[in-house]
Amino acid sequence: LMISLSLLEPNKTPFTPLVVMELAEDTNEEAVTWLTSRIKDTQQSGGAELMIDRLTLDDNQDPKKENQNIFIVGASRERLLVGAEDVGLVKEFNDGSMRGFTYANRENFKGFQGDGDNFLSMAECQFIVKHELDTLRARGETHVPGYPKIRLYPGKSVVRRIQSKGILVQIFPLHDKEELKRLSSMWYQNVQLSFQPLDDIRHYFGESLALYFGFLEYFTLAMVPMALIGMPYYLFDWEDYDKYVLFAVFNLVWSTVFLETWKRFSASLAYSWGTLSRKKAFEEPRPGFHGVLGINPVTGRQEPVYSSTKRQLRIYLVSVPFVLLCLYLSLCVMMVYFSAEGLVLGLHDEEPTFWTSLLLYVPSIIYAVVIEIMNRIYRYAAEFLTDWENHRLESSYQNHLTLKVLVFNFLNCFASLFYIAFMMQDMQLLRQSLATLLITSQILNQFVEAFLPFWLQKRRNKRVHRRSGKVSPDQELPFDQQVMLEADMSTYLGTFDDYLELFLLFGYVSLFSCVYPLAALLAVLNNVTEVYSDALKMCRVFKRPFSEPGADIGVWQLAFESMSVIAVVTNCALIGMSPQMKSYFPDSETQLILVVATVEHVFLAFKFILAFVIPDVPRHIQIKLARVEFESMEALKKKAVGNRPAPVPDLTKEKA
Amino acid sequence: LMISLSLLEPNKTPFTPLVVMELAEDTNEEAVTWLTSRIKDTQQSGGAELMIDRLTLDDNQDPKKENQNIFIVGASRERLLVGAEDVGLVKEFNDGSMRGFTYANRENFKGFQGDGDNFLSMAECQFIVKHELDTLRARGETHVPGYPKIRLYPGKSVVRRIQSKGILVQIFPLHDKEELKRLSSMWYQNVQLSFQPLDDIRHYFGESLALYFGFLEYFTLAMVPMALIGMPYYLFDWEDYDKYVLFAVFNLVWSTVFLETWKRFSASLAYSWGTLSRKKAFEEPRPGFHGVLGINPVTGRQEPVYSSTKRQLRIYLVSVPFVLLCLYLSLCVMMVYFSAEGLVLGLHDEEPTFWTSLLLYVPSIIYAVVIEIMNRIYRYAAEFLTDWENHRLESSYQNHLTLKVLVFNFLNCFASLFYIAFMMQDMQLLRQSLATLLITSQILNQFVEAFLPFWLQKRRNKRVHRRSGKVSPDQELPFDQQVMLEADMSTYLGTFDDYLELFLLFGYVSLFSCVYPLAALLAVLNNVTEVYSDALKMCRVFKRPFSEPGADIGVWQLAFESMSVIAVVTNCALIGMSPQMKSYFPDSETQLILVVATVEHVFLAFKFILAFVIPDVPRHIQIKLARVEFESMEALKKKAVGNRPAPVPDLTKEKA
Repeated sequence: LMISLSLLEPNKTPFTPLVVMELAEDTNEEAVTWLTSRIKDTQQSGGAELMIDRLTLDDNQDPKKENQNIFIVGASRERLLVGAEDVGLVKEFNDGSMRGFTYANRENFKGFQGDGDNFLSMAECQFIVKHELDTLRARGETHVPGYPKIRLYPGKSVVRRIQSKGILVQIFPLHDKEELKRLSSMWYQNVQLSFQPLDDIRHYFGESLALYFGFLEYFTLAMVPMALIGMPYYLFDWEDYDKYVLFAVFNLVWSTVFLETWKRFSASLAYSWGTLSRKKAFEEPRPGFHGVLGINPVTGRQEPVYSSTKRQLRIYLVSVPFVLLCLYLSLCVMMVYFSAEGLVLGLHDEEPTFWTSLLLYVPSIIYAVVIEIMNRIYRYAAEFLTDWENHRLESSYQNHLTLKVLVFNFLNCFASLFYIAFMMQDMQLLRQSLATLLITSQILNQFVEAFLPFWLQKRRNKRVHRRSGKVSPDQELPFDQQVMLEADMSTYLGTFDDYLELFLLFGYVSLFSCVYPLAALLAVLNNVTEVYSDALKMCRVFKRPFSEPGADIGVWQLAFESMSVIAVVTNCALIGMSPQMKSYFPDSETQLILVVATVEHVFLAFKFILAFVIPDVPRHIQIKLARVEFESMEALKKKAVGNRPAPVPDLTKEKA
Repeated sequence: LMISLSLLEPNKTPFTPLVVMELAEDTNEEAVTWLTSRIKDTQQSGGAELMIDRLTLDDNQDPKKENQNIFIVGASRERLLVGAEDVGLVKEFNDGSMRGFTYANRENFKGFQGDGDNFLSMAECQFIVKHELDTLRARGETHVPGYPKIRLYPGKSVVRRIQSKGILVQIFPLHDKEELKRLSSMWYQNVQLSFQPLDDIRHYFGESLALYFGFLEYFTLAMVPMALIGMPYYLFDWEDYDKYVLFAVFNLVWSTVFLETWKRFSASLAYSWGTLSRKKAFEEPRPGFHGVLGINPVTGRQEPVYSSTKRQLRIYLVSVPFVLLCLYLSLCVMMVYFSAEGLVLGLHDEEPTFWTSLLLYVPSIIYAVVIEIMNRIYRYAAEFLTDWENHRLESSYQNHLTLKVLVFNFLNCFASLFYIAFMMQDMQLLRQSLATLLITSQILNQFVEAFLPFWLQKRRNKRVHRRSGKVSPDQELPFDQQVMLEADMSTYLGTFDDYLELFLLFGYVSLFSCVYPLAALLAVLNNVTEVYSDALKMCRVFKRPFSEPGADIGVWQLAFESMSVIAVVTNCALIGMSPQMKSYFPDSETQLILVVATVEHVFLAFKFILAFVIPDVPRHIQIKLARVEFESMEALKKKAVGNRPAPVPDLTKEKA
């Protein structure tokens, strides 16, 4: 933790700034005083026991223009270590095993030296501070002081309440300029042939994001063989379906193996990062979780309790029908689009004029706009529904939300391709559409997502630097201006969109691989630039996100696996539809279909057997996990004895 | 433990007889002395610390005729309780949770009263004694005393060695006449409409067998709706394929739901019996497991260690190819049989005489004999291979063996039915074959398996009673004669054949359900009598088997689930082949097949989603398991502190 806070008022204990809380400019001073005192209060009296200070802005800025209600939050080293225990951080123990960190036992953990200065990474400290702020719960207060209308109920999260009511504008962790510079030079600044520094990414951004970059890299590498094998098909214009069959078979087997081995690789990563050993059932509920205050049956802690039956009912009686209805609607819209296009095409064929040729584009444009609107409305509804389902854990919330948005996006992206492939059976058009989609999405996405915002951010940086009198943008800004600069950066909304991009890419590559072998090559090229653009946007464009502990890529694993199952079906169907295959069975189409169906079933069975046979967690990690579990059980046995001393077994009596 | 052993020599401590060891009649007395002393030795000096005594035979029997080397093994109450800890018994704790039993903490377990007299069931005691005998390992001895040729190596199981060399003829647990009487009256003696007393069965025979009977009952009940719905098809001679489709759909959904809910039910049973919480990784290796003596990386105990890579290589490079080869051979034999039958049928059609009509039966008979021989050879080979694979755990050994034998039996039983259904497309013949198979297997199996042996055993009992001068067979025999009687009973070889029977039955019912709806009714009838005949054979025909802890039905769950997946495919195909379906698509067979294939895929997807969505363990049990795990983790945290006292966190310093 390298930044020292010399800029804060000298009569207070200096502390390392970790998290910024921006309150609304017109916040009632009474509320500010109440909030800061609640945050400073000891844990015994229900506070968060953190350190908080108002950011003092430099003189050369016009105080009227800037928000004066920006607060810096930090914590003492001891408080952070105690907090590490609260959030259930898992660290490497002296004996090489991964164990839940405890303050009392801190000196037995590897890397704990002196008073534990560098034991926790800054990202971990910020995560701890965030957790402590989130779990700051209302006690006696009936409303936020100064705001009689904003009611508070005992046990509700204070920070969440004032955030939803607009008093808290934003809360974000600060970047660490020094470390960021080191990370970027290792990560993306020099074009180099090496793996990404995943451990460093995790150190700076947390496990979830590091897993995303790990997956991105793994996925890219896994597609290299496909791309290499696919190239000659394009170069030599192979139209031979025998070869396509070979390619498709390779792809199907390969994608299964790659998804299974990824699970093992990610388990290794998560183990070494301590997140594989975290138990979901032991985690504290996410701040948005609400319910009657009760006792958690597993941990015995006091927390909101909500019936899982109710949640199931909400999911199966409301959410699932709603999603199905939306999917149906989306299909209807697509059918309308196709018939409109047919109509327009008919008009144009009948009497081709300039106007009809313009008219040809109208259905596509309207369809694109409608889809975009539907997408936004649907996403809003999905978020609302998932929130309403009231999941206890953040990971469970994310998985349910992701799944909802995912199926809708899948349908919108692939339904038209399926229509072209299986209804129109126009392979030329399919190939064209795939190429267009792959190339435009690659260029557009990376431009809109990373390079444009990067350029805008750079301009803003320059402006701030100029205003503060620094000539070079490399020079360090004063602390207050750095905070203001970061407060103005846009917020990273999570890995969903990044994963979705990869997922759709995987779909383009695998679903129609036997028709368009070049897709894999394009995907590899896309991913290589994606690594750089994503790295750039994380380091330069966005506010630093709070680190999120994650043991795997969650529901995305399921999504990719489902896609590879669907790919078996589509590829078999495409090969079965090829003229060359048909020429092998000139007399009977029935027999052709039966052969294709049999082969497909064999493939599916093979995939499931493969997935069943390859263990998800490597053996040496299974053993390490089992060892800790064994030691825990032994400790429990001994502890129970300690509670009530029992006589030592006296076996000598019987032997005599 | 009700039998008191007054018949043993009066100058020794009396103990409850639990297990019988029969040594060969001509065993060298030196070996006998050595063995008994090793069994009696204290654990510190490497013995089993059990009690053992030679069975003294009553005078009125000719001592020359009976084997004098029959030994009764028992143990002191304390030794059994310590042994319960060794084998990892899980019992209900005072607070209602299930915990690993420890001797030191014994008084905190529910049902432990006084000196713990009735805390362990007789079956558990016998299991413990068996375990202690099995883990009696060679120390300094280079060979069995008196047998210089039977070498011993440090760490090898002594009992297993002398058993494989024929010195130990058999080892079995004793029946408990009183309890057996109580159990049989509750279980099968009175025809009654009630569930089986599963808890009592478990108490007497152990978890594995109780789970078998639980599954048998569950399976039977689950088939009742199918049977009821299937009846009108037979009564009213419905040949309407619409109705068959309905029936098939119901069956497919039902079988998925029933298999999923069984998993939940069996988890509840296993939880209340304490086997669900047993961790496989913590179990001791099975006696047949061999390897270099090393340290178990999980438990830290000294035991044989064997590389899992080597085992994998043996499985995938030897066992799998061997099994595939055998399956192929078996298919070849079937093809030869079908062509032979075609040949004979041709001969008979050409010139029908008495001899040719006799000749008609020859291929079937030869085929049946060949299959039987192949089955036996294959089973022997499978056992050899699985043994050679050197699995560490008994459950893993059983699963691998079962899987091997299973696929072979599946092929032999169903290949000809598949041939009739899909190659010959003769539904009448299929129905006939199914009916024949169902009815004959039912009658034959239960007669050969239970009633015939029961009758033979009864005759033997009477003979023994008469010889010992008791007139009524209800009178109790003297202890020594009871032991001799049980020693002569046949040995129960495990649940494999019983499960296999159910598995094949499930196949007959589900694979062709849309062709022969009556199958479910026949299966229900079969199962109802099966409960009685199996109960009878366990209680009256066989030696008592050693109890085996089991948390689920192992690989059988997988087998039944796979069967229900295959059933989706076969039923869709059968419906697609029906004339009525064909008449719906008079112009294009292709379209029919595509429709059927689509429906099939939807069904398969539905099945997998259903299996994914229904949790395998009921929520309230998940919570209980998580609670113990949480407490263990907390105990581990505290224990680590205890090892090296760390200063108490001093947060006041910073606050001041």
